[in-house]
Amino acid sequence: MKRSQLFVKTLKDAPADEVAKNAQLLIRAGFVYKVMAGVYAYTPLGIRVIEKIKQIVREEMDAIGGAELIMTALQRPDTWKETKRWDDEVVDVWFKTKLKDEQELGLAWSHEEAIIEMMKTHVSSYKDLPQYVYQFQTKFRNELRSKSGIMRGREFVMKDMYSACLDSEQHEKFYQDCIDAYMRVFDRLGIGEDTFVTFADGGAFTKFSHEFQTVCDAGEDTVYMNEDRTVVLNEEVMNDETLAEMNVTKEELKPVVTAEVGNIFNFGTQKSEEMDFSFTNSDGKKQFVHLGSYGIGITRVMGVIAEKMSDEKGLIWHANVAPYQVCLASIGDVSEQAENLYKELMKNGIEVLYDDRDVRPGDKFADADLMGIPIRVVISSRSLENNEVEVKMRESDDAEMVNLSDAIESIKRKLSALE
Amino acid sequence: MKRSQLFVKTLKDAPADEVAKNAQLLIRAGFVYKVMAGVYAYTPLGIRVIEKIKQIVREEMDAIGGAELIMTALQRPDTWKETKRWDDEVVDVWFKTKLKDEQELGLAWSHEEAIIEMMKTHVSSYKDLPQYVYQFQTKFRNELRSKSGIMRGREFVMKDMYSACLDSEQHEKFYQDCIDAYMRVFDRLGIGEDTFVTFADGGAFTKFSHEFQTVCDAGEDTVYMNEDRTVVLNEEVMNDETLAEMNVTKEELKPVVTAEVGNIFNFGTQKSEEMDFSFTNSDGKKQFVHLGSYGIGITRVMGVIAEKMSDEKGLIWHANVAPYQVCLASIGDVSEQAENLYKELMKNGIEVLYDDRDVRPGDKFADADLMGIPIRVVISSRSLENNEVEVKMRESDDAEMVNLSDAIESIKRKLSALE
Repeated sequence: MKRSQLFVKTLKDAPADEVAKNAQLLIRAGFVYKVMAGVYAYTPLGIRVIEKIKQIVREEMDAIGGAELIMTALQRPDTWKETKRWDDEVVDVWFKTKLKDEQELGLAWSHEEAIIEMMKTHVSSYKDLPQYVYQFQTKFRNELRSKSGIMRGREFVMKDMYSACLDSEQHEKFYQDCIDAYMRVFDRLGIGEDTFVTFADGGAFTKFSHEFQTVCDAGEDTVYMNEDRTVVLNEEVMNDETLAEMNVTKEELKPVVTAEVGNIFNFGTQKSEEMDFSFTNSDGKKQFVHLGSYGIGITRVMGVIAEKMSDEKGLIWHANVAPYQVCLASIGDVSEQAENLYKELMKNGIEVLYDDRDVRPGDKFADADLMGIPIRVVISSRSLENNEVEVKMRESDDAEMVNLSDAIESIKRKLSALE
Repeated sequence: MKRSQLFVKTLKDAPADEVAKNAQLLIRAGFVYKVMAGVYAYTPLGIRVIEKIKQIVREEMDAIGGAELIMTALQRPDTWKETKRWDDEVVDVWFKTKLKDEQELGLAWSHEEAIIEMMKTHVSSYKDLPQYVYQFQTKFRNELRSKSGIMRGREFVMKDMYSACLDSEQHEKFYQDCIDAYMRVFDRLGIGEDTFVTFADGGAFTKFSHEFQTVCDAGEDTVYMNEDRTVVLNEEVMNDETLAEMNVTKEELKPVVTAEVGNIFNFGTQKSEEMDFSFTNSDGKKQFVHLGSYGIGITRVMGVIAEKMSDEKGLIWHANVAPYQVCLASIGDVSEQAENLYKELMKNGIEVLYDDRDVRPGDKFADADLMGIPIRVVISSRSLENNEVEVKMRESDDAEMVNLSDAIESIKRKLSALE
C-alpha cells in the first residue's frame, strides 16, 4: 500500500477525552477512530491488525477441530428467559431495542444461550457429538463507564467457542486441548511469556474456571502468583481451601496487575438442563449435553498489545500482527528506484507500506516509528550512491546499510527471526 | 472437512413460518439458521459462501484503489442530526437503544454520515484526496415486515464503499471504474448475464443513480428493459424526459421482475455541505468534498443466487462461491482409500467435504445435491474393483468413471471449466 493512498493521518495529540494509553496511541498512530466512549472504528491500518489476530486464533481453533460460523446480534427475549438472563437485574449490560410492533429485542452481549438454541436443531443423537463451533462476533455491552480504550468496549469483537460433548471425559479432553491452543495463540501474538493460565471462580457446576491473564499495568484484574509463576490465582478464589489444594501459602503469592485476554468455562450439564439440550445415547436414553465455553477478546488483545509494546516514539507491533512488515521510505528524487523496490518486496510476499509522500524525512521516520512497523527501509540518493538501502529494526537504534541486491533476502531473514 | 465433524444437519422440511424460497432451501440444506423473521445466523457451510462472496468483492474493490476498514454499529444521534436523518419520521428503519444514562443511540442502518464524520478527521487538504474506503458491515434495519428470507434482512451484511474526491471529474472517473468493478463482481458470482446496470432516481444532486438489478422472480423491484437489454430503467424514472434521453419508446420497454444487488450514488457536494466536510485546494481556498456511495448486499446476493440457481433436488452453487468444490462420498468399507483420496484432494488445494458418515448411499447423494456442491466423487468397493471413482457434476445427470490415478487432474480440469 502506498502511504499517499492510505486513508490515515497520524496525529500529534490524542483527543482530550481519551484517557486510556492504548486508545491514545492507536488513535495518534491512525489505527483507531473514536466514535464515543467504548465504541471505536478501525481504519485500514487497524483492521489489518485485527484480521491478523483473528487469523492466528482461527488457525488454532481449526487445528483443535473448531468449525467457524456466525450468529446474530439481534436476540429474542424468549431465548434468554429460559436461563433467567433476559432480566436487566440479572444481566446489567443489555442494550435493548424494539421491533415496530413493540416486541423487545436484545443486542447480544454473549451468545451462550443463542448458540445452544441453534445447536438443539442440529444435535439429537450421540452420533452428532462432539461439536466444537466458534465465531468472531461483535458483542454489545452497556457498560456504565468505559475508560479503558479498546480494552473494554461497549462494542467489541470477541472469538467465542462452544463445545458440546457426550460426557465429562470428552469435555475434559477438549478443555485441555483448548488451554494448549490458547497458549499457542498468545505465544504467536507475542504475549505468551506474560500470559498465565489463572484459576478463577467456576460458577455453579465446577470449582474453577480458567482465565488467561496477561501482565499489564492497564489491566483491571489482580492475580496472585508465586515466584516461579506456576500457581496463578484470581483474587476471587484466594481462600484457605484453594491455597491448600495448590500447596502454596498466602505469603508465597504476590499480587500482579493483569488484563484478562481469554477465559474458558465448564458449564457441565447445567445450561443444557435449563434449556433442555439433550441427545439420545447409544442405549436409547435421553442425556443432557456437556457444554463448555471459550472466549478470547480480539479487540481487547489488540489493546493489551498496544499497552505493553510501545515506547516514547509509539507502538511496537510484533511481526505476526503488525499491519505491514516493512515501511519503505523514499528520500529525495528516487521514486523510480523506490517504486522498483516496493514492487520487488511485494512480489516476494512481504507486506510493505511505501511512504511515497512529499514530506520531510523526519516526518516519515516519526510516522514509521509511531505506527510501529517492525522494519524500516530507507532509500535515498545518498544510499544509492553505493547501491545500498538503509535497514533499521523498530526496536533498535542502529541502522544497517544493505546492498540493494541483497535487500530482499536480508529483510526476509530479519522477518523470520521476528516470528 | 469431514461431514461427521460438520455442525450441520439437512432437513426434510423448512420451518413452517419460512415463506421465502431462498431461506427455505438454505435452512433445509444446513446453511442458515433462522433466529426470527429477517434475522439469520450462518452455519459453517453458510459462512463459507459469505466469505467467498466477500473475497470476490474485496479483490475487485482493492483493484480500483479501495481501502478496507470497519466502522461501528452503535451510532451517536448528533452524527445523524446534521443531515436530519436521526428523526424516525425521516428514516423509518432505525433500531434505537439507550446508554445507562438514558442517552439515545442508534444501530447503523447505513454508514454514510458516520464515515463522513470519520473522514473529516483525516482529510483537510487537496493532497489528502481522493480517498476510497469500504467495509463489510452488519446493518440493522427495523423493517415492518420481513418475508424475503436473507434477501431483505433486519440484520444483514453489506459491502459499502465511499469515495471522497476533489471534484466531479475525479468522481466521475471512479464512479465508472466502480460500475466496471461491480460487473466483474457479478460475473464472478455467476449472475453477470442476468444483472443489469439500471437507471434509477438520482436524488437531490444528480438526475440518475445506478442500480444493479438481477432478474429474479423473488425480487421486489420491476425494471423496464428493451429487447437487446441496453436500456434498463427503474420504474421511478420511467417518464417522457428519460425515454427521450435514452432514445426509446415506452412500447419498446418490457417489465421484468428483479432484485437489487447493488447500487451506486453520486452525492455531489450536498452531503459534504450539510456536514461541513471540506478541504483546502491548491489555491488555499475552502472547497467541499465530492462524495459517492457504492453498495453491494452480500447476504442479499447469497439469497439471490440461492433463488436463481436451484432445482427440485436443492441448491446449485457456482464453483466460485460453493462452500466446497467437491463432495467425496464413500460407500461401503473403503474408508482407507477414501481417506487417502480426501487427503490427496486437499493437498492439491481442492476444497472437499468428505461424507464419511455411516448412512445409506442415497442419503449421501441427496445431501450432496441439496447442498449444491459442484462436483460429487463417489468411491466404493465396486468402483475400486476397476481402480476407479465416479465423478458427477451437480448440474448433470450423467456420471463418469475416472481412473483413480487421473482423478485429481480430471477434477481440476472440471473445476477450472466451471470458474
